[in-house]
Amino acid sequence: MSVFSTERRIRFSDCDPAGIVFYPQYFVMFNGLVEDWITESLGIGYHQLVMQRRVGLPTVRLEADFKAVSRLGDPVTLSLAVERLGQRSLTLDLRCSGQGADDVRMNLRQVIVTTSLDTHRSIDIPADLRAAIESSRGRHGLS
Amino acid sequence: MSVFSTERRIRFSDCDPAGIVFYPQYFVMFNGLVEDWITESLGIGYHQLVMQRRVGLPTVRLEADFKAVSRLGDPVTLSLAVERLGQRSLTLDLRCSGQGADDVRMNLRQVIVTTSLDTHRSIDIPADLRAAIESSRGRHGLS
Amino acid sequence: MSVFSTERRIRFSDCDPAGIVFYPQYFVMFNGLVEDWITESLGIGYHQLVMQRRVGLPTVRLEADFKAVSRLGDPVTLSLAVERLGQRSLTLDLRCSGQGADDVRMNLRQVIVTTSLDTHRSIDIPADLRAAIESSRGRHGLS
Amino acid sequence: MSVFSTERRIRFSDCDPAGIVFYPQYFVMFNGLVEDWITESLGIGYHQLVMQRRVGLPTVRLEADFKAVSRLGDPVTLSLAVERLGQRSLTLDLRCSGQGADDVRMNLRQVIVTTSLDTHRSIDIPADLRAAIESSRGRHGLS
Repeated sequence: MSVFSTERRIRFSDCDPAGIVFYPQYFVMFNGLVEDWITESLGIGYHQLVMQRRVGLPTVRLEADFKAVSRLGDPVTLSLAVERLGQRSLTLDLRCSGQGADDVRMNLRQVIVTTSLDTHRSIDIPADLRAAIESSRGRHGLS
Repeated sequence: MSVFSTERRIRFSDCDPAGIVFYPQYFVMFNGLVEDWITESLGIGYHQLVMQRRVGLPTVRLEADFKAVSRLGDPVTLSLAVERLGQRSLTLDLRCSGQGADDVRMNLRQVIVTTSLDTHRSIDIPADLRAAIESSRGRHGLS
Repeated sequence: MSVFSTERRIRFSDCDPAGIVFYPQYFVMFNGLVEDWITESLGIGYHQLVMQRRVGLPTVRLEADFKAVSRLGDPVTLSLAVERLGQRSLTLDLRCSGQGADDVRMNLRQVIVTTSLDTHRSIDIPADLRAAIESSRGRHGLS
Repeated sequence: MSVFSTERRIRFSDCDPAGIVFYPQYFVMFNGLVEDWITESLGIGYHQLVMQRRVGLPTVRLEADFKAVSRLGDPVTLSLAVERLGQRSLTLDLRCSGQGADDVRMNLRQVIVTTSLDTHRSIDIPADLRAAIESSRGRHGLS
């Protein structure tokens, strides 16, 4: 499966009084990862998609498992793979890892739908976004 | 099942450029609900539990379904019920509703473990917290 | 000077790894206070003002002094007074205190302008908002 | 004056229902900039400073001017210069700009003190941090 990933350090503002990531911040980090994936890997301007084209990408379902804590200053890798591409929805497999692929801190299965930001109703995945996702998966010889 | 609930309005700071709740903010809201439940309903000072007694309440698993959007200014009810009380873990059933119980915006099944904030290892649920939860469930004649 | 105030506890999500309020969170708290003031004290629906009437209330200048730390669980009072009411701007005097008026944690002088959310240009303060602010100040016999 | 800067895009999670940066997020961005400056430019591990050495860097005063809005997707430059280095405090001049130095979105003058995270009392700026700041200013031939 084609994987997009970025690296970052856990910041002070990500952490709670226990000195570890406050778990809702993982979702903020992954939201940024999806933005970067759409803009940098798929070549579709995320902000144009949202602000000009008025396409929303709300989450309808998620399942998350928290395996190990991430501490302030930890270097982590955030990665994204497309698990399923539907007509109006996209299932993503997201992961936060430390040093080494075995050091999984947290993983997330997230179902996103495409909507009109004017009506908040679901719409088909825009053709260019679909083509870019299919091409991205094909590039890596994976279905 | 015994239910603890609070009411609030969706605030500007909860919302995204689409004018609806940015989904990680639901988890921030529910984190506050758990604090209020422990302090107000169970009678255990949440901040003493965390800061003085060094008991952590990290999430190890969650499943969330987002059913309908919540908009800036919407009055919502946040509710919490204990689904399962284990030796070292607690499964909560959390919900955000609009006006009327049928208007479910989002629900969350969350597994929390009790840990030592010094070691980040799991520990038994403290006896007073366990007793308060059991008593709270009993008060309502429910298992 | 007429004062609007609310009380709350410092929450886990407000705090940083030092166990004290992460300072940007004060601004989030005060943003909520301004919302409550407009809706509850002035009787103008804040969310209608922003979402339907498309009136923005961006900050153009602020000065803040942090006097003492606020810790997880601390009960605090957030208060707001109008220092100056201009044609297109409003200067607010905001404060976070602990127990007792002498226990000032942080104060903020904030200049807000009214804008059109369509152009992001300044506009006159809407007549009903101005009247409500003037009436609120008059109610307390203060200029 | 020696300047440290980083570039980033304005993210969805930085923005409010008006589609522009929610102003407290500027302070979160600048908090990250200070972290990066300490770790990358000064060569002092920020997270060791905070977590192991228990040195806090709370803000005691800030003055901010918001000149122009930043929108979702805007590329911005965040820059930092040391305006004054005291015995127990540091005054920073922070700025968020768009394309070109004239396109200032927001600037911030921030006074930070060094504290013990155990007592929350001020302490002298640690010798290695002071030396690194002085060296950084000297490197650029500036006082």
